Amino acid sequence: MQFTAQELSLMLNGTVEGDPLVAVNQLAKIEEANAGSLSFLANPKYEQYLYTTNASVVIINKDQVLSEPIKTTLIRVENAYSAFSLLLEKYNTIKLNKSGIEQHCYIHSSAQIGENVYVGAFAYIGPNVKIGNNCKIYPHTYIADDVVIGNNVTFFPGVKIYFDSIIGNNVIIHSGTIIGADGFGFAPASDGTYTKISQIGNVIIEDDVEIGSNTTIDRATMGSTIIRKGVKLDNLIQVAHNVEIGANTVIAAQTGVSGSAKIGENCIIGGQAGIVGHINIAKGSQIQAKSGISRSIVIEGKKWAGAPAVSYNDNMRSQVVINRLPELEKKIIELEKIITELRKGH
Amino acid sequence: MQFTAQELSLMLNGTVEGDPLVAVNQLAKIEEANAGSLSFLANPKYEQYLYTTNASVVIINKDQVLSEPIKTTLIRVENAYSAFSLLLEKYNTIKLNKSGIEQHCYIHSSAQIGENVYVGAFAYIGPNVKIGNNCKIYPHTYIADDVVIGNNVTFFPGVKIYFDSIIGNNVIIHSGTIIGADGFGFAPASDGTYTKISQIGNVIIEDDVEIGSNTTIDRATMGSTIIRKGVKLDNLIQVAHNVEIGANTVIAAQTGVSGSAKIGENCIIGGQAGIVGHINIAKGSQIQAKSGISRSIVIEGKKWAGAPAVSYNDNMRSQVVINRLPELEKKIIELEKIITELRKGH
Amino acid sequence: MQFTAQELSLMLNGTVEGDPLVAVNQLAKIEEANAGSLSFLANPKYEQYLYTTNASVVIINKDQVLSEPIKTTLIRVENAYSAFSLLLEKYNTIKLNKSGIEQHCYIHSSAQIGENVYVGAFAYIGPNVKIGNNCKIYPHTYIADDVVIGNNVTFFPGVKIYFDSIIGNNVIIHSGTIIGADGFGFAPASDGTYTKISQIGNVIIEDDVEIGSNTTIDRATMGSTIIRKGVKLDNLIQVAHNVEIGANTVIAAQTGVSGSAKIGENCIIGGQAGIVGHINIAKGSQIQAKSGISRSIVIEGKKWAGAPAVSYNDNMRSQVVINRLPELEKKIIELEKIITELRKGH
Repeated sequence: MQFTAQELSLMLNGTVEGDPLVAVNQLAKIEEANAGSLSFLANPKYEQYLYTTNASVVIINKDQVLSEPIKTTLIRVENAYSAFSLLLEKYNTIKLNKSGIEQHCYIHSSAQIGENVYVGAFAYIGPNVKIGNNCKIYPHTYIADDVVIGNNVTFFPGVKIYFDSIIGNNVIIHSGTIIGADGFGFAPASDGTYTKISQIGNVIIEDDVEIGSNTTIDRATMGSTIIRKGVKLDNLIQVAHNVEIGANTVIAAQTGVSGSAKIGENCIIGGQAGIVGHINIAKGSQIQAKSGISRSIVIEGKKWAGAPAVSYNDNMRSQVVINRLPELEKKIIELEKIITELRKGH
Repeated sequence: MQFTAQELSLMLNGTVEGDPLVAVNQLAKIEEANAGSLSFLANPKYEQYLYTTNASVVIINKDQVLSEPIKTTLIRVENAYSAFSLLLEKYNTIKLNKSGIEQHCYIHSSAQIGENVYVGAFAYIGPNVKIGNNCKIYPHTYIADDVVIGNNVTFFPGVKIYFDSIIGNNVIIHSGTIIGADGFGFAPASDGTYTKISQIGNVIIEDDVEIGSNTTIDRATMGSTIIRKGVKLDNLIQVAHNVEIGANTVIAAQTGVSGSAKIGENCIIGGQAGIVGHINIAKGSQIQAKSGISRSIVIEGKKWAGAPAVSYNDNMRSQVVINRLPELEKKIIELEKIITELRKGH
Repeated sequence: MQFTAQELSLMLNGTVEGDPLVAVNQLAKIEEANAGSLSFLANPKYEQYLYTTNASVVIINKDQVLSEPIKTTLIRVENAYSAFSLLLEKYNTIKLNKSGIEQHCYIHSSAQIGENVYVGAFAYIGPNVKIGNNCKIYPHTYIADDVVIGNNVTFFPGVKIYFDSIIGNNVIIHSGTIIGADGFGFAPASDGTYTKISQIGNVIIEDDVEIGSNTTIDRATMGSTIIRKGVKLDNLIQVAHNVEIGANTVIAAQTGVSGSAKIGENCIIGGQAGIVGHINIAKGSQIQAKSGISRSIVIEGKKWAGAPAVSYNDNMRSQVVINRLPELEKKIIELEKIITELRKGH
């Protein structure tokens, strides 16, 4: 894909300064851009890059004042950041512009598939599955019996959806993620063995959710594991049976949420954190990476850290002292000696 | 699937109180049930739900005494919990009742497949593979050369089994789990590069093992990585080369076991724990979530916590003091001042 | 596969002592070997096994002196360890000796595939993909548009490579690993929702890299996520967008590297470690398992531990005191009492 400054300017409703015929074929950060690249400057802090960049074209804000001579072609727009984001999106749309039903996929005769749906080769769509419009089902995806999927949903290659799952609109799930496998439920017997507890609930994923790659979300024992509207989950996250994650909560990679935990709305949870089962996390909670949350968080909107977690500030204060512990211990031993002498003196 | 109270009562060898013709089509917890649901009451603690539930039918113990008027239909049985579990199992059996060889699967001419085996579309069964009776090989499963599989085994979609693996009877492996990939073995060379050490051992999984989704179990360098009878592994667990996990040990999600570690029987290991290589864990050990086990555990049946782990009680005691460290440090500084004054006084 | 001592000796340029016609069909450690096994002795420390082993054939160093009578057949070679490694490699080469294009794979008409390439059934090779010579693309692998792959590359079953990725020579990627899924980038809006930031960069994997199973490496927002020459990554590792991992760095399982972190060359990073975003790790750093690296490491070649991490030695010292904290607290309380009494005495 190649575009001239003139063409881009038209798309973005901007004005060109410099050569309108110069062409670009890739997008790059202003400080890393080569000839043939399109870049942007939104933050005035980085103005100096404008005079040194190798980008062929740079998008800038309408009101950007130039303080040095310039060698690159400029496109002035209302908001450089938004304009560039728009181009990123268009680029992605072109790259992901798959359509049609590829040969060698399996679609059960009872499945209902909406309009303008891409089904890749080797995708498997089981009995009674319902898929809305404008969905993209990439190769090697498996969708089991009775799954219901909304509109504008993308499953990247290798996503596996177990039976009875319900997926909302505008959901994106990346490769290797498993939705609806059995929860980890076993009843101990007196001889030390375990008996499986059948997991007959399902998983519900509401609208506007995005889930990264190789994440696992288990079905409920009974009822539903629920991922609410607007949740964003990163890669390699574990969500156990009967968990509920509140709207617009964001969770970073490799975090684990144990069975029946309920996480509120608008929480931000760092990577490699762990949340024990059957607790509630108040809405707006911010949990640091690697934290271990071992009991319910009741107060909303606070920061937590450590394992077991305490308030972020308390954790910071303790952490500082931990690093001084060897000195502190020495000090105590010295004090003991002095006191022993003092007592002798009495 | 829809059943009347009468039909269910016959299945469960029970007696109906109320409308024998009322029909149910789903299973639910008594406190969450809607009209059309079947539920149960086993624990007398929750008796009050019996009078408020919206379930159409509730299974109760034969000897349950009613203290208030009731609007739902009851089925009285010997043991309400067992009866309900039986129905859960039946439900699951119907849901997972796949059979036959679907088109577009790959079965090598030298593979031997038992009776009543389901092979899903796009499943791959390689040369010399042996599969027992009543197995379910879901779509997108890969079974490499010379793998041997027992009876009543289920591989959910996308399981990958590398060559030479041996899988026992009644094993369940969930989607995305990888059995027998190369162990992580490299010999450092003097120029800073690493040379791969060929990993020619295998993985042995004994009877009655269940493994969650996206877990990884590496093949041994030589010999076998062994998962003993009755082990239950959750999702996203790492089991390195030459590890042995003892019978009926249960491990929660995201835990990692390093190379050549030997874990005893009947251990319970929490999520996100880590076990270093070449150590032994005594049977019956209970390891808290997020623990780091850095040396062998010799005494059987004890609880451990922390990273590096110490006894659970010691860890709890230290943890309490850690949260008081800032005050403790202040106290020490005050004591120092006082002592300095006292000494001056002398 | 079965070989006589004579045949093996010829391959290894050795000399036989004992029965040249005895046959072996498997490789085993000397202490675990059964009849029919081939083993080796390189480390004189284990000499006693030579006299007790059940191996049918043992490879030993040319100059190994025997101090007891022996029942097994020996092959004497220049270097027993190297000779045995060579056999391991040959064994593996035979086991992994796949070739040809299997039926039921999808190769886009615009894809270019080199000589002597294996493409397994149900593999998917998209538009404009370029694959070099001697590659092995196992079943269920997905290679998206415009991916470029070098020579001697192996993708085990179920690897997924998103569009625009660039893979060097001699790269091995194990099952279930996802290369190039979207980075975790979202812009918060004022109403608490998040807007996706398009991720249009790619992933570059240089020569001689090996990656374990179910690992995830995200594409860059812009520019590239880069895995340099000779890097070895274990299973279930998370590598976020715009990360760079230096040449010959080795990372153990379940470690996570956050966005835009730059890790130097020849680092050794243990399992379940976490590295925060936008920091640099100096070359030659050694990071203990479960560490949390929260700021840049500037000094090269040092050991780090703890979360947040400090120098390995400092961490060890603090850790020792942590386990003594309850006693230490008692001591402080006693000191306080004594001092109060001493003051009264004044």
